[in-house]
Amino acid sequence: MCQLLGMNCNVPTDIQFSFRGFRRRGGETDHHADGWGIAFFEGAGCRVILDPAPAVASPIAEWVQDAPIRSRNVIAHIRKATRGPVGLENTHPFVRELWGRYWAFAHNGDLEGYAPPTQAGAAYRAVGETDSEKAFCAILSALRESFAEMPSLSLLAERLELLNRDIARHGPFHYLLSNGDFLLAHATERLCYVVREAPFGPAHLVDQDLSVDFRALTKPDDRVAVIATTPLTDDERWTPLPPGELALFLEGDRADPYQELEPQDHAAIGA
Amino acid sequence: MCQLLGMNCNVPTDIQFSFRGFRRRGGETDHHADGWGIAFFEGAGCRVILDPAPAVASPIAEWVQDAPIRSRNVIAHIRKATRGPVGLENTHPFVRELWGRYWAFAHNGDLEGYAPPTQAGAAYRAVGETDSEKAFCAILSALRESFAEMPSLSLLAERLELLNRDIARHGPFHYLLSNGDFLLAHATERLCYVVREAPFGPAHLVDQDLSVDFRALTKPDDRVAVIATTPLTDDERWTPLPPGELALFLEGDRADPYQELEPQDHAAIGA
Repeated sequence: MCQLLGMNCNVPTDIQFSFRGFRRRGGETDHHADGWGIAFFEGAGCRVILDPAPAVASPIAEWVQDAPIRSRNVIAHIRKATRGPVGLENTHPFVRELWGRYWAFAHNGDLEGYAPPTQAGAAYRAVGETDSEKAFCAILSALRESFAEMPSLSLLAERLELLNRDIARHGPFHYLLSNGDFLLAHATERLCYVVREAPFGPAHLVDQDLSVDFRALTKPDDRVAVIATTPLTDDERWTPLPPGELALFLEGDRADPYQELEPQDHAAIGA
Repeated sequence: MCQLLGMNCNVPTDIQFSFRGFRRRGGETDHHADGWGIAFFEGAGCRVILDPAPAVASPIAEWVQDAPIRSRNVIAHIRKATRGPVGLENTHPFVRELWGRYWAFAHNGDLEGYAPPTQAGAAYRAVGETDSEKAFCAILSALRESFAEMPSLSLLAERLELLNRDIARHGPFHYLLSNGDFLLAHATERLCYVVREAPFGPAHLVDQDLSVDFRALTKPDDRVAVIATTPLTDDERWTPLPPGELALFLEGDRADPYQELEPQDHAAIGA
C-alpha cells in the first residue's frame, strides 16, 4: 500500500510544510520506499517530478521540499510496490491529456485480479505494469468515450462513481485525480482531509517534530484543503472521507459535485 | 526560435557536460530566456523537468546540471517564445503516450499560419498555445490513425517524412522526438550532431570555458550521439543534418531507418 497527499487551494500555495512530513513516510516513519512523485499544476501546465528512489533519500525530494513552488492543485504519492517492479514507469502520479487538459492521478491500494478490457483499441494505454496506471487509463478511456468535451462536474462525478464502484470490487481504491481546476478524491477505507482557513492557527507535524504558524504565512481569504492517507498533523481536525463516495475539492474546500445536476442530465451519461 | 539538444546512447549516460554549455544559451550566451525543459528516458519511463524561468537562472536547471541522471535518450529545449505566452503549459518537451509508450517532442521554429484540422475529434489535443505542441499532437494523431501498434522503423519513418513535409511548408521545423528506444531528428535549416566513441578524446565547450576528457569517463564500447541546434564544442567534428531528411539515432549513432524496408510494406502506410 502507498501514501497519498493532495492539496487544493483557492490561491497558488506552496506545499513545503505538508510535503516535509509526508516525505518521511517514504522510508523513515513508514516503509514506503519504492519511489515517490509529485505533480504541481500551474494554470493548465503540469510539473511532474518522479523518482524511483525512496523519498527520504531522494536528492530531488530534498530540492522539492525547499522549493517554493506555488500551485492550486498538487498530487503526491509515495510507493510501496505491490504490482509492477520499482522503476520510473511505475512511479505515480501518472499524467495523460484528455479534452485538451492534463490529468494527474495517484492511487493507493492493490487491485486483485483487475484486468481492464484489452488495451489494443483503448484510447489510453498503460506504459508500466501497475494496476494503478491500468485503472487510470481505463477511467480516462471510459470518460472519453462518454463525453467528447469536458462535461459538467455533476455529470463527470456521476460517471466516475460508476467506474469507481466497478474497479473497487477488486480491492482498496484510494485515489486522487486533478486537471488543475479541481481535485477529486476517492476512498474505500482511509483517506482524510483538513481545511485551513481564517482564523489560521499553528500546526505540528506527526512525522517530524516541526511546527508552523499559518497566521504568519497566509492572507485572510486564503483557503487550502489538504488530503492525506492518514493525518499529517496532530493538532488539527482531520475529517475522514466517507468510503465509496467521490469527494470534490474546489477553491480550497469540499464541494458538492451534484449541486447543479438537473434530472434531464442523467440520461446523457449513458452507462 | 529556440535551442534543441538531444542525446542518444548505447548505454545509459549522463548529459551533464553538454547540458552545462547548452544551459547558458538560455539567457546568457544567447537570448532564449522564455523557459526550458528536459526529458530523460529511463527504460519505458520518462522523467520530465520543465521550468518557465530562464535556464541560466533556474534553480532546477542548476540541480539537473549537477545530477548524474543516466539515460539512453534525452531531449532538452530552451525556449524563445514566438507563439504562446511564457508559461509551463507552453514549455517543451511535450510528452504523450502512444502505443503504450511515452513519446517526448521538442521543436525549434515558427510555423506561420499552421492550423491543424479541428482538434475536437483528434486523438491528441494541445493543452497550451504553441504551434509546436499542435504539430506534435497532429503527428501523433496521424501515426495512431495509420498504425494500431508500433510499426517497423522504416514504416514509421516513411509516414513521418510525409507529415514533416506537410508541416514544414509553414516554416522552420526542427524537432527531436523519442520514445526511449531511439531518437528521431528533423532539420529544415540547422541541426547538427557529433558521435563520441573510442578512441575518446577531450572536448571544450563553446558556451563556457570548460573542457572534459572523455577518456576518463567512458568504457571502450560506449557510444554517444549528441544533437544540437549549433555545435556545443569547438574542438569536435559536428556534422550538419541534411535539411528535409528524417535522421534516426540508434545505439549512439546515426542509422538508416529504411535499411530493412521491403517494397510490399509501402502499401501499408496509406497517405
